Amino acid sequence: MASDLDETDRFQPRFDSSGLITAIVSDAQDNTVLMVAHMNAEALRLTQDTGVAHFWSRSRSSLWKKGETSGETLKVVEILTDCDQDVLLIKAEPQGKGASCHTGRRSCFYRRVEAGGLVFIDETRLFDPKLVY
Amino acid sequence: MASDLDETDRFQPRFDSSGLITAIVSDAQDNTVLMVAHMNAEALRLTQDTGVAHFWSRSRSSLWKKGETSGETLKVVEILTDCDQDVLLIKAEPQGKGASCHTGRRSCFYRRVEAGGLVFIDETRLFDPKLVY
Repeated sequence: MASDLDETDRFQPRFDSSGLITAIVSDAQDNTVLMVAHMNAEALRLTQDTGVAHFWSRSRSSLWKKGETSGETLKVVEILTDCDQDVLLIKAEPQGKGASCHTGRRSCFYRRVEAGGLVFIDETRLFDPKLVY
Repeated sequence: MASDLDETDRFQPRFDSSGLITAIVSDAQDNTVLMVAHMNAEALRLTQDTGVAHFWSRSRSSLWKKGETSGETLKVVEILTDCDQDVLLIKAEPQGKGASCHTGRRSCFYRRVEAGGLVFIDETRLFDPKLVY
């Protein structure tokens, strides 16, 4: 089952038909998953060149330096890729107030799925989104 | 900027145009990101009902109980969703030998992206894929 993509040391990121690759951001300190976004080739290049995470915003159809408005930038510690090279894992040190989510929370994953609905597991707002955006 | 999806306690998973949602699996013990796959509504329902991770295989176009062949199943501890509900984060306890990757490694993210190419950061095979698949 091993394929070339699995065992190669050549970086061949597999962008999808829209030219995008999924990028997960985790906290380099404790591995907490902070957010998920997408990169096109230019966002990836800028991320590698500057050491600060850049993405492609699908809703705005534009390049997006994470934290440009909020100050909540992500300093890249390392970038990993998975076996079939269609996902990137960005290990980062969150800057600013450490709120990677646009809601002001540390992580975008602040709700647990239960049988009856969603349960909020993090209500701490590190910034007030009404004041920032 | 807050939208209904951000602050609701109603679970409204946003499946894409192919009926799929991205599912990240992390180790419930230490948050290490283990793999990324996709779920359709049935895979999500089975995951919730059985407590064992199920996915939709895009390459095989079929429902897939992770570990059915290898024994490397994932016992679900909790499921989180993100602010816009288009990603699931499955916190799991890996069973079997604890190899979530089909290459026999613990995590699919075993290579670091560097300027010159990919550097292997985990060469430990917990099983031999040639003997399993």
